[in-house]
Amino acid sequence: MADSEKAILLISCIDRPGIIARVAGHLFELGCNIITSDQYTDDEDGHFFWRIYFETLKAPLSELTRDLNATLPQLMPWEKLRWHLYDAAKRDRMVIMVSRLAHCMMDLLSRHRFGELDADIVGVISNHPDLEPLARPFEVPFEVIPVQKDGKPQAEARLLERLAELRADTVVLARYMQVLSGDFLKRWQKPIVNIHHSFLPAFAGPRPYKQAHERGVKLIGATAHYVTEELDAGPIIAQATTAVTHRDTIADLARKGKDLEVIVLAKAVRAHLNKQVLTHNNRTIVFE
Amino acid sequence: MADSEKAILLISCIDRPGIIARVAGHLFELGCNIITSDQYTDDEDGHFFWRIYFETLKAPLSELTRDLNATLPQLMPWEKLRWHLYDAAKRDRMVIMVSRLAHCMMDLLSRHRFGELDADIVGVISNHPDLEPLARPFEVPFEVIPVQKDGKPQAEARLLERLAELRADTVVLARYMQVLSGDFLKRWQKPIVNIHHSFLPAFAGPRPYKQAHERGVKLIGATAHYVTEELDAGPIIAQATTAVTHRDTIADLARKGKDLEVIVLAKAVRAHLNKQVLTHNNRTIVFE
Amino acid sequence: MADSEKAILLISCIDRPGIIARVAGHLFELGCNIITSDQYTDDEDGHFFWRIYFETLKAPLSELTRDLNATLPQLMPWEKLRWHLYDAAKRDRMVIMVSRLAHCMMDLLSRHRFGELDADIVGVISNHPDLEPLARPFEVPFEVIPVQKDGKPQAEARLLERLAELRADTVVLARYMQVLSGDFLKRWQKPIVNIHHSFLPAFAGPRPYKQAHERGVKLIGATAHYVTEELDAGPIIAQATTAVTHRDTIADLARKGKDLEVIVLAKAVRAHLNKQVLTHNNRTIVFE
Amino acid sequence: MADSEKAILLISCIDRPGIIARVAGHLFELGCNIITSDQYTDDEDGHFFWRIYFETLKAPLSELTRDLNATLPQLMPWEKLRWHLYDAAKRDRMVIMVSRLAHCMMDLLSRHRFGELDADIVGVISNHPDLEPLARPFEVPFEVIPVQKDGKPQAEARLLERLAELRADTVVLARYMQVLSGDFLKRWQKPIVNIHHSFLPAFAGPRPYKQAHERGVKLIGATAHYVTEELDAGPIIAQATTAVTHRDTIADLARKGKDLEVIVLAKAVRAHLNKQVLTHNNRTIVFE
Repeated sequence: MADSEKAILLISCIDRPGIIARVAGHLFELGCNIITSDQYTDDEDGHFFWRIYFETLKAPLSELTRDLNATLPQLMPWEKLRWHLYDAAKRDRMVIMVSRLAHCMMDLLSRHRFGELDADIVGVISNHPDLEPLARPFEVPFEVIPVQKDGKPQAEARLLERLAELRADTVVLARYMQVLSGDFLKRWQKPIVNIHHSFLPAFAGPRPYKQAHERGVKLIGATAHYVTEELDAGPIIAQATTAVTHRDTIADLARKGKDLEVIVLAKAVRAHLNKQVLTHNNRTIVFE
Repeated sequence: MADSEKAILLISCIDRPGIIARVAGHLFELGCNIITSDQYTDDEDGHFFWRIYFETLKAPLSELTRDLNATLPQLMPWEKLRWHLYDAAKRDRMVIMVSRLAHCMMDLLSRHRFGELDADIVGVISNHPDLEPLARPFEVPFEVIPVQKDGKPQAEARLLERLAELRADTVVLARYMQVLSGDFLKRWQKPIVNIHHSFLPAFAGPRPYKQAHERGVKLIGATAHYVTEELDAGPIIAQATTAVTHRDTIADLARKGKDLEVIVLAKAVRAHLNKQVLTHNNRTIVFE
Repeated sequence: MADSEKAILLISCIDRPGIIARVAGHLFELGCNIITSDQYTDDEDGHFFWRIYFETLKAPLSELTRDLNATLPQLMPWEKLRWHLYDAAKRDRMVIMVSRLAHCMMDLLSRHRFGELDADIVGVISNHPDLEPLARPFEVPFEVIPVQKDGKPQAEARLLERLAELRADTVVLARYMQVLSGDFLKRWQKPIVNIHHSFLPAFAGPRPYKQAHERGVKLIGATAHYVTEELDAGPIIAQATTAVTHRDTIADLARKGKDLEVIVLAKAVRAHLNKQVLTHNNRTIVFE
Repeated sequence: MADSEKAILLISCIDRPGIIARVAGHLFELGCNIITSDQYTDDEDGHFFWRIYFETLKAPLSELTRDLNATLPQLMPWEKLRWHLYDAAKRDRMVIMVSRLAHCMMDLLSRHRFGELDADIVGVISNHPDLEPLARPFEVPFEVIPVQKDGKPQAEARLLERLAELRADTVVLARYMQVLSGDFLKRWQKPIVNIHHSFLPAFAGPRPYKQAHERGVKLIGATAHYVTEELDAGPIIAQATTAVTHRDTIADLARKGKDLEVIVLAKAVRAHLNKQVLTHNNRTIVFE
């Protein structure tokens, strides 16, 4: 018998009675033990979402995968069925993109080193060389892809090439100060997590701390979201706010906001890497 | 066929592979559709906890109850099995106990009136008559059981009698300033939710805001917990804190703390009434 | 000699060296003892703001007022000087306006009864009679001014008349579901505090919880602000947020948001009544 | 005339009328402009505390210092007068002490590098060599003073010697896992800021996350405080809490707690370095 392996099965479809009984029954027959199970039904359109974290007790995961790929459509012959089986031992290959601000990059690299992120960080890519010395002790390749004035198409072509070479699964924009074009997003297709330094949808676009100061808000926020074509409008994964006062200058907001950005981005990246995030109608379901 | 009915099934036992498959399969055979399902396994002792919220599509709930009482022990012939099936349409009978501070009572009565608490409030019992006028517009019987010096045994006997007459399921101590004796608790046996105005285990016992002020903490807290024989040491259901400064006097702490007490108690009572709270080793599992 | 009286002096002007020395020196000569003093200078335009809470030890406050009105312009012969002296013993006359949702009204009436609001609540005015029974035990006059379709000018004229008769200093919109016209605001001129059930500037306008649900935010908020002609765009006094998840329906957001609204509105009203709030460039300075 | 210099004046004494007028008047005569002023009177014992941040417009700070040292006792001939004048341009010399956990050290070194801490970090001292590689890119000397079994007196003697050689003003225990002896504290006498990973006074002493898990709390906390002879009982500077659930293992609490520790320690260290913290009766006054 194979050693126990762990896997995550994500399922979504139109909700029908018996889903849990059928799938749980089949997993049991295959010798799998469910460790955690989280489900959610969207009452508005009847869509059902399920995340199952299980261990194999009999057959190896490769065999199970073949079986489930064949069986699940028969067990759930229902509209809009989608599923994905992840080998929990296979770590995502993650690329961090930055510009000149270090805090989010430093935090992700530190968490990675201390075993808090279930991923291999295969590279840091920046449009500036400034942060290279800070990344060095973490022994992750640091690469510069400059973005010249009028040179964005060339830079994005180079970026696409490098992400492919690095076989990246997930890209994290850790205060990368460039907007990725719709053309780039159409070609890349894999998940990109961005941190925006406001409580979206308030203060989308450039200079959110300046906007927040001008409006005189009493809280500032940070939002981690998946990148979509419309700027700062993708599905939100995590948000947090912290109190500010009239005494806080724009620089104070930026300083206080850094702590929020770091925590919100780390929370979103962890959830994404653990396959706890599903998207539906430009919103996220986050199974915690 | 009967109209659809809704029910909550709580199960706990030593974790074994196949629990979910067996129970979900049996519920499906009985014509039940699982609406939400939450589970948790305590890694330290292998105890498994499960809350299933489901609707009946075929048989009436009364019939299902008989079936499950007979079948569950056979499906799960495992150590420490306990289960309980609740008819979601049957509301708890709840009694609120208060002394002279109105805020928690007012909040629970307001929430009840606005449909936020899934219970019938069958009475308010106090050791003082002061709050009667404030309870009156909510049309809930208000009753005074005074506690004389050296008269606690008599008062508790009277209280026990009244709770029995009111057929109370749940008692909420909404800033009731008397300690219930171990003898009373042994006789009563049903759940009692208390709000303590500190972040337990800090500042247990009398005058927690005075204790907090003396220690010079920068946050104050509130804790809702089940009452057990040891004072302020029962399983914690909900907690919250809020910032204070050196400028806050004991009176300020009491004023700021009121908002915390109200919110924490309401959150705990809602979770308790919805059967989202299980206890294990003097801790709670709260399925949200 | 008169008994000690307490007063609040608010001063603003373009910042110049010596302000504190001159005014504190003059108050000392007049036999006043400063209890608390808070100041702030806006670095962008050099505006200085000062709140002094003091007690009189020699002359009565009426005499002091005459003296200060004559002396302050000489002590501070500077641009944009404005000052206001408040007798701390004189309570604001406050009117609460509501529609059909009770929670904010109930909370303000409760806090008032328990001595937490330094004001006389001289009336509750609603466009609907629904909440009258809940207001009754607090012994505050409840009055209905209905707003008919196409009848807003008449309703506002009546409202203006009543506020004048009640000699209201402060109006609080405690989930009053009507927009007050620019014409009304021009005539009324005194401060109006509103609670909006979102984290402004996100989700201004109608149905903010629906907007929040559609955008899929992970926090909801509440904002208390002074009313100005532009809807939901006045100076913000207080804000707070609380976490929500994909499981929360619009109704859940409304329920969770109620607790925020109540706390944020009470905080703003307390600060306003204590003369802790100054406005400048559509922002507030809140001295806490 | 000298260039403008900035200074902080901390004053405490028994409160008497006229303090502000006298001192503000004298500073004005000396050609000083008050930038911010914060005061607090402890109502219990009548102690008055004042922090004045001012700039010199005429005389150099050295001259002012001589003047104030001579004049203040005459201006305020009152009980328990203490004052201290700090040159705002003179940065504290700070030493960070660590054991094997990197997060607090990394955070302080990062904030220092990004200009957020108004101090010179003159050394990191550890009882283990493990963290040296992570400190290296920040170009701060890293030194190991091992603590052998039964060798604490020797280690503390060596530590005392090194702190003196480094001319340290402030020591920060950034998860330094050794208790400093009363004897050491008596000799050192300068402020030591410690981060304790619980919401003190709950869970003082060793393994607070284990204690928290066993008690089943729904929030964990972190506390930054000045070190005194009694373990974890010194004046509290800053605290924060974050929500946890029954699902969180002790390892999860430790992971979630790291973010709290980092933020709370940084906040306390910033306030301490900015001379915003005064202590009184084992409590702190923190002027923000």
